[in-house]
Amino acid sequence: MSLGTGMHDLVRRLYPLCRSITGDGVRETLAVVGEHLDLTVHEVPTGTQVLDWTVPQEWNIRDAHITRDGRRVVDFRELNLHVVGYSVPVRATMPLSELRGHLHTLPDQPDLVPYRTSYYAPAWGFCLAQSTLDAMPDGDYEVVIDSTLADGSLTYAEHVVPGRVDEEVIVSCHVCHPSLANDNMAGVAVAVELAKSLRNPHYTYRFIFAPGTIGAITWLARNRERVEKVRHGLVLACAGDRGSLTYKQSRRGDAEIDRVMEFVLRARPHEIREFSPYGYDERQYCSPGFDLGVGSLTRTPYAGYPEYHTSGDNPDFVTPESLEDTLAVCREAVAVLDHNRRYVNLSPYGEPQLGRRGLYSSLGGRSDAKDAQLAMLWVLNLSDGDHDLLAIAERARLPFAAVAAAADALHAAGLLKD
Amino acid sequence: MSLGTGMHDLVRRLYPLCRSITGDGVRETLAVVGEHLDLTVHEVPTGTQVLDWTVPQEWNIRDAHITRDGRRVVDFRELNLHVVGYSVPVRATMPLSELRGHLHTLPDQPDLVPYRTSYYAPAWGFCLAQSTLDAMPDGDYEVVIDSTLADGSLTYAEHVVPGRVDEEVIVSCHVCHPSLANDNMAGVAVAVELAKSLRNPHYTYRFIFAPGTIGAITWLARNRERVEKVRHGLVLACAGDRGSLTYKQSRRGDAEIDRVMEFVLRARPHEIREFSPYGYDERQYCSPGFDLGVGSLTRTPYAGYPEYHTSGDNPDFVTPESLEDTLAVCREAVAVLDHNRRYVNLSPYGEPQLGRRGLYSSLGGRSDAKDAQLAMLWVLNLSDGDHDLLAIAERARLPFAAVAAAADALHAAGLLKD
Amino acid sequence: MSLGTGMHDLVRRLYPLCRSITGDGVRETLAVVGEHLDLTVHEVPTGTQVLDWTVPQEWNIRDAHITRDGRRVVDFRELNLHVVGYSVPVRATMPLSELRGHLHTLPDQPDLVPYRTSYYAPAWGFCLAQSTLDAMPDGDYEVVIDSTLADGSLTYAEHVVPGRVDEEVIVSCHVCHPSLANDNMAGVAVAVELAKSLRNPHYTYRFIFAPGTIGAITWLARNRERVEKVRHGLVLACAGDRGSLTYKQSRRGDAEIDRVMEFVLRARPHEIREFSPYGYDERQYCSPGFDLGVGSLTRTPYAGYPEYHTSGDNPDFVTPESLEDTLAVCREAVAVLDHNRRYVNLSPYGEPQLGRRGLYSSLGGRSDAKDAQLAMLWVLNLSDGDHDLLAIAERARLPFAAVAAAADALHAAGLLKD
Repeated sequence: MSLGTGMHDLVRRLYPLCRSITGDGVRETLAVVGEHLDLTVHEVPTGTQVLDWTVPQEWNIRDAHITRDGRRVVDFRELNLHVVGYSVPVRATMPLSELRGHLHTLPDQPDLVPYRTSYYAPAWGFCLAQSTLDAMPDGDYEVVIDSTLADGSLTYAEHVVPGRVDEEVIVSCHVCHPSLANDNMAGVAVAVELAKSLRNPHYTYRFIFAPGTIGAITWLARNRERVEKVRHGLVLACAGDRGSLTYKQSRRGDAEIDRVMEFVLRARPHEIREFSPYGYDERQYCSPGFDLGVGSLTRTPYAGYPEYHTSGDNPDFVTPESLEDTLAVCREAVAVLDHNRRYVNLSPYGEPQLGRRGLYSSLGGRSDAKDAQLAMLWVLNLSDGDHDLLAIAERARLPFAAVAAAADALHAAGLLKD
Repeated sequence: MSLGTGMHDLVRRLYPLCRSITGDGVRETLAVVGEHLDLTVHEVPTGTQVLDWTVPQEWNIRDAHITRDGRRVVDFRELNLHVVGYSVPVRATMPLSELRGHLHTLPDQPDLVPYRTSYYAPAWGFCLAQSTLDAMPDGDYEVVIDSTLADGSLTYAEHVVPGRVDEEVIVSCHVCHPSLANDNMAGVAVAVELAKSLRNPHYTYRFIFAPGTIGAITWLARNRERVEKVRHGLVLACAGDRGSLTYKQSRRGDAEIDRVMEFVLRARPHEIREFSPYGYDERQYCSPGFDLGVGSLTRTPYAGYPEYHTSGDNPDFVTPESLEDTLAVCREAVAVLDHNRRYVNLSPYGEPQLGRRGLYSSLGGRSDAKDAQLAMLWVLNLSDGDHDLLAIAERARLPFAAVAAAADALHAAGLLKD
Repeated sequence: MSLGTGMHDLVRRLYPLCRSITGDGVRETLAVVGEHLDLTVHEVPTGTQVLDWTVPQEWNIRDAHITRDGRRVVDFRELNLHVVGYSVPVRATMPLSELRGHLHTLPDQPDLVPYRTSYYAPAWGFCLAQSTLDAMPDGDYEVVIDSTLADGSLTYAEHVVPGRVDEEVIVSCHVCHPSLANDNMAGVAVAVELAKSLRNPHYTYRFIFAPGTIGAITWLARNRERVEKVRHGLVLACAGDRGSLTYKQSRRGDAEIDRVMEFVLRARPHEIREFSPYGYDERQYCSPGFDLGVGSLTRTPYAGYPEYHTSGDNPDFVTPESLEDTLAVCREAVAVLDHNRRYVNLSPYGEPQLGRRGLYSSLGGRSDAKDAQLAMLWVLNLSDGDHDLLAIAERARLPFAAVAAAADALHAAGLLKD
């Protein structure tokens, strides 16, 4: 089975679970992820103060429907998007005229069901296709939302791949959206495979699976000291649609992750976007107090496709090929990030004599020097403490791997120091 | 009466007065301006040292003509451009061959009378159309310039609109050109209306009506301490022709006024020019010792139209619509400048929870956030002490007013400090 | 005789000498140059440690050939490129099959003889046209290389034109290539004429004629204190082919020499290249420990033409016109470099009154100011200690000579200080 098919299967399996910012849907999701990765699951009680926020009550739901004449016109069991997330319980009969105030549709996309929530204001509601609403005759409807909103906890999980240093790279995915496939079970699936691919990395890699906004805020609030160790990070979302890749820069715009992603994406159709404080959890990681070097990788970006936050974002909207392509870019980025160093040339006056160290061809006069020799000259010339290997590869227009290999050879020859 | 018509009437009224760098023409001009604005008029005696310069003798003129056979061939009373400014008195009869050395024409624009001066070297001369000169037969001419050049004073005026702070914005117009409409009675007319439009501004606005070069130098010389308070400024000239707007940057190139003008002009056809030490009194305000954040707003720029410094620059060359458009841009610029601040986010770790403060919609999932909400997120994210509201509006591609309103709301909620 | 013809004659005269990084070919070359310039010739003994390198044994060669049936199939006396530089002596008879391992050809350019060396690994070889090789039947060949490799010395020379200050400009040419005309007898010829053209310069100009790489390294090693005085420099190479000029920036990219060359080249077809650590001796001068402001001027750049490092680079490949054009650019560059200063305006508050100093036309109102007056205003406005005259000329879009003349006039009037 290809990696792409495997990731797509994971998306399909996670898709039906009714996630929200708290509750059993998140726990079940993390249990499935836990079959692939060693997870530490955290439960943070309702009422806990996290930065400027407070962990809300936990929401769980068993069933919901709008019924007329004994027939479920709108049925949570068919699609969990039908209920506004965090709806308070309701059990009532009311005329359509009254019910309308609780119904959300997309008049311009009449066959799609929207995704709506009301986390922080007590309310209830249903989401349905405009075409369904149009077919509903006036009259009384039975309305049931069998939910609970009660003290409990917020759930998130971490998977850590220890590195040779305790400086960290974080990869963060939101796990709060119910039946939306690209947003964000696709991101979760790519993160899982990325985590599995890491072997003895330089940095410590921390994968965070947490509900959007409040989850990231909770992680940040509970990890104030660890945040100091975070060097780079990536928010993974919308990782599986058919569009090309989009990288959204960190707030800094010139963080190392920004340079790495731009370097890696150069060979593919892609778009680079400047940071904006709207989107996924990069909003929190890049808030001005933290200002972490965290960018966001998506395919079609946040709110950029018609199916976004609708029932159109189902597993068929995601393809194995796209998931695999996103994963490949993540792996390339990790390969660069993890090997990127800043060296100092220990023989900076004139070129060192590479030939007597066996690092340079003894036959002179040829003008077609190989990448490996050019890479050594570039590394020596630019290793002044200001340029990292990535900057050298960019400047020299050489593959990063050639530059990294040259640095390794020069380091082994005692010509460079870390 | 529209603002444009009112300004155009003022241009027409001021046009015939024979202004120069000193003398009664300037006083009469300021008296008319004084009907609209509360002016402080300053008289600076001949001989006063002002920076590297000395206030010259005062020049006044009653009449001048070149007469043949009792007929005035060239007549100051018809057009005051006919006399070279600061001409010493003369009363003589001389053959055309001798007179030619004192005559100035524009051979390439044979029907226009040029504008010429000789402020700092004693001389006399007449300006006339080449076609007039071509029609003058050889022979003797009576030449009269009934002028006086004597100790007196240089005159300039100020109008001040007090602000909530004593930091100043200066708006400067030259008032030394005789019958030239666009250059610069148009600038004067726009300045008058701009001054009248200011209501309880943040900055103190100082309008300076002074002769070019020596007037600005005199003001600078007599206000060395006030200059320290000048934060921003604009030289207004050529404000009424049919061309589109041109903003000439301050010497600094990135002063706040430069950013404001570029932001405001973005929505209109316009041109941005780099600073050059040639043009109007920005030359003095932007001399390297002062280096003030003073730019220059014109329509067609300095020396950029064929009628420039000729009799073609008459009131018909100026239109009410253009005057009104220039004024509108000035008012927009003032609105941005006056509300532009640098705030610091007091809750910089993660996003503050705007919802519980009533600043954010409680319904989640929608992707079409309103400008007001985006503006708040941008202000919070970039209010780190480095970005002012203008920088935030530019970065966010939002209207300045939306960003300023967001900042007001966040400030009122205690989330920002000045 | 034109300068171009003279330089071309010098190229023709130097072309046949069999130069290498050491040996009598270099000495004979310097002797010819010494007929034009007063040279100091240095001999540095074999074994001398120079930076990371060691001066190698000296190589000399009298004859070499591949002979079959008494006929020289490949003959050093016809073209010295036929022998791999630094070949150890050999005298043997061997079948073609064995000889092939010592033969170098250019299969894609079958009629050209390549240039090859083996300075630092003991080896021997011949270079020949592929077409020659193709015509060689199997069988035994007599192989003779009558060379010596023995303790001796490395030879380089300097010519110094003393300046009014002891800060230096270096002009460096490699003199190690045997019969290659453009690379680099053309550079030598241009350097000779450039040196002869200097008259009482501001800077001290040092012309360095040294073998590539090891020669520059030797000069740097023996002049560690002088290097501190080097302000600017130019490596001259490939100075005579028919291509347009190419300037390769110093490692710094914004050194004064980079700005000067770009300014001077603006009026000609040309190319500017970023620094790369591959090419001529700029590699050494711009190694990160020295990081000198040294760029490289060529026509078609390093390795950029098919005749590069082949027998096609003969005196016909070089033209008098191209040599003259390269020389002209060098002289213009020297004129700018040598007069470029940073002044401070002593009257920085407002414009000084130029009129009373006789520096400004007394007739006002004209809009067509002359370059000379504009240049004075620009120099006054930008002479704040940050801008040199070149920066002013660039910003003002005025000829450097006009700006320099304005600065001279203002300096004479006491308005500027150095």
